[in-house]
Amino acid sequence: MSLNFDAISSQDLARGAVLLGTGGGGDPYVGELFLRKQLSQGLQPRLIQADELADDAFVVCIAGVGAPTVLLEHLVSETILKGLLAEAERIHGRVIDAIICAEIGGVNAMFPLAVGAISGLPIVDGDGIGRAFPHIEMTTFSIDGCQAAPAIFIDDLGNKVSIDIPDNRTAETVVRAVTGALNGSVYGVLYPMSGVQVKRSAIRGTVTQALEIGRFIRLARKRSGNPVAELVGFLDGLDVDRSAQALFTGKIVDVSHETRDGYHWGKVVIQSLSDSQDIMELNIQNEFLLARHNGRLVAVVPDLLCLLDSESAEPLTAENLRYGLRVTVLAYSAPPKLVSTQSLAVVGPAQFGLQETWRPFTELVNEKLTPCT
Amino acid sequence: MSLNFDAISSQDLARGAVLLGTGGGGDPYVGELFLRKQLSQGLQPRLIQADELADDAFVVCIAGVGAPTVLLEHLVSETILKGLLAEAERIHGRVIDAIICAEIGGVNAMFPLAVGAISGLPIVDGDGIGRAFPHIEMTTFSIDGCQAAPAIFIDDLGNKVSIDIPDNRTAETVVRAVTGALNGSVYGVLYPMSGVQVKRSAIRGTVTQALEIGRFIRLARKRSGNPVAELVGFLDGLDVDRSAQALFTGKIVDVSHETRDGYHWGKVVIQSLSDSQDIMELNIQNEFLLARHNGRLVAVVPDLLCLLDSESAEPLTAENLRYGLRVTVLAYSAPPKLVSTQSLAVVGPAQFGLQETWRPFTELVNEKLTPCT
Repeated sequence: MSLNFDAISSQDLARGAVLLGTGGGGDPYVGELFLRKQLSQGLQPRLIQADELADDAFVVCIAGVGAPTVLLEHLVSETILKGLLAEAERIHGRVIDAIICAEIGGVNAMFPLAVGAISGLPIVDGDGIGRAFPHIEMTTFSIDGCQAAPAIFIDDLGNKVSIDIPDNRTAETVVRAVTGALNGSVYGVLYPMSGVQVKRSAIRGTVTQALEIGRFIRLARKRSGNPVAELVGFLDGLDVDRSAQALFTGKIVDVSHETRDGYHWGKVVIQSLSDSQDIMELNIQNEFLLARHNGRLVAVVPDLLCLLDSESAEPLTAENLRYGLRVTVLAYSAPPKLVSTQSLAVVGPAQFGLQETWRPFTELVNEKLTPCT
Repeated sequence: MSLNFDAISSQDLARGAVLLGTGGGGDPYVGELFLRKQLSQGLQPRLIQADELADDAFVVCIAGVGAPTVLLEHLVSETILKGLLAEAERIHGRVIDAIICAEIGGVNAMFPLAVGAISGLPIVDGDGIGRAFPHIEMTTFSIDGCQAAPAIFIDDLGNKVSIDIPDNRTAETVVRAVTGALNGSVYGVLYPMSGVQVKRSAIRGTVTQALEIGRFIRLARKRSGNPVAELVGFLDGLDVDRSAQALFTGKIVDVSHETRDGYHWGKVVIQSLSDSQDIMELNIQNEFLLARHNGRLVAVVPDLLCLLDSESAEPLTAENLRYGLRVTVLAYSAPPKLVSTQSLAVVGPAQFGLQETWRPFTELVNEKLTPCT
């Protein structure tokens, strides 16, 4: 693909990555600046399609781990990232052929492109989630039986930790503990995979999708008085298997945040502008996980929830929410790959400690309330 | 050294290791059984003196990490330990020439001998502390500038984590977090060193010393009505630079325990049998760190504090203390290597969060109280 990145497309990608990041994944602004720095030095990321991978190609994910609130504070240098790649090649005894995003949300949609630009490695147009999730084991790669380990992580001081832990959930627990011990954020090379595994498991085309979403918002804003409505229509038409819908519009009247155990936890309450009793509440663990409309469940993970600025359709990260913002709650169907029984055992509500059962938001929203008898 | 281990000398070593472990380091009974298992299969650990090491020999420490309370619960198999050694050799690209104990306290005085028996590697007669300490960076190796990393750790399920963290205190923080994430105990190969480094930094002869202490207690018990007094005399005469003294005798009237953040924390209060107002109190972080007699400091880390059963002179581990035990508090001077200004910056009271300044317990005990004027 001969896509040429510039400052504008970098911003498009970052904006699309916030939407697909469903509030989490870390503000991609840092990643955008990092990518633009590479572009300014004449380095370009090169996107390839999964089908271009040889079956025995050696592909890895590159991802930041840590609470989004902390990832923002720790920049990492090109030297450290190059050292990380070299160490990964040493551990695996193989040259890396391509990079793929672990998740297409937030900073983890941007950094792999910057690393691709720095290293010259191609980036597969796709990822392992089609959105963002707070845990390492929550990927289609993991669902299909790939191990996140052997994996190696490095912090901004160059401290390195490698893990060889077959169970992906245990790997997550250990890496989260290491992240906490190393000031809250690390960058890792994980999910060493073959070309065959990537072609089987990746959610395809998501880098391009993030770019297109960002581009659509930018252009809709110029031509329309209602970019939110346009965006909902655009997303709804992207894929026959997926729907998009504006669930609620109002202003933020309460927001709580906590950075704990390596995650960003929180809750946001949105009140209708026309009826102060009409409320939507979202739960956050890095990402928006669940929406309740006046106490009734209307959308739950793995369906995507996003907060948009009601005026500009700017997607908002969870850590930047504040009282008074006028927002629209957007729901977007999870990629079909995430809602099989097998997938829900890894990325369903129960994995986030939620009691709710996943059902498509389209069903939940349209459900008739049982009348009292 | 042609020392031949048997069930009796294994028990002697374990008993001496509890005394030098100053209450911590994990009950060596598990390590004793593990060593005796190897002996029963005809495998013998082979002790060597540090001077027998070639200058460029490759020596590593083998140690368990975790709260002593948890180390007791997790046995580790020969297969896993062999795998750990093989992985360490792979990471370092070198064959290991010898093993040395990180600390001569508790289980970490026993396991290296068992691993030596299993692997055929010689064990250097010495260690990096001359007692036990709760942190990885608290060793004479560290004080002399050796790095604990690169190091590799494995749990009883075979999960492996390796670290390459130059700062030893940061390494401790990360390994402690990893230990917590992996059910509370891991075994590691750490402090990769040359023969020169070991010869310069090790506290020598401590394996033999632990053996002799254990042997002395066993024999004193048979020939004497007062093995505690005999033991104090024996220790006091071992080394011209060090003193031993019984600080207090009484019964345990209060003991508190907590396993938190990968450590065992606690406090024990001992009351005189003849005067209920006469009290000695010891603080525990894995080891006994500090003794106060009626509120007045009488001994503090790095001086050794040990609780002995008053009747049998059996050294007691901190996690096995209980109400009503008749005990004698024994103080034993720290090895001279631990009390230099440089050493106290790593193993002095402040490193344990204590306000007190180290002074030899012999001074503290004999200090005249300033009379009121």
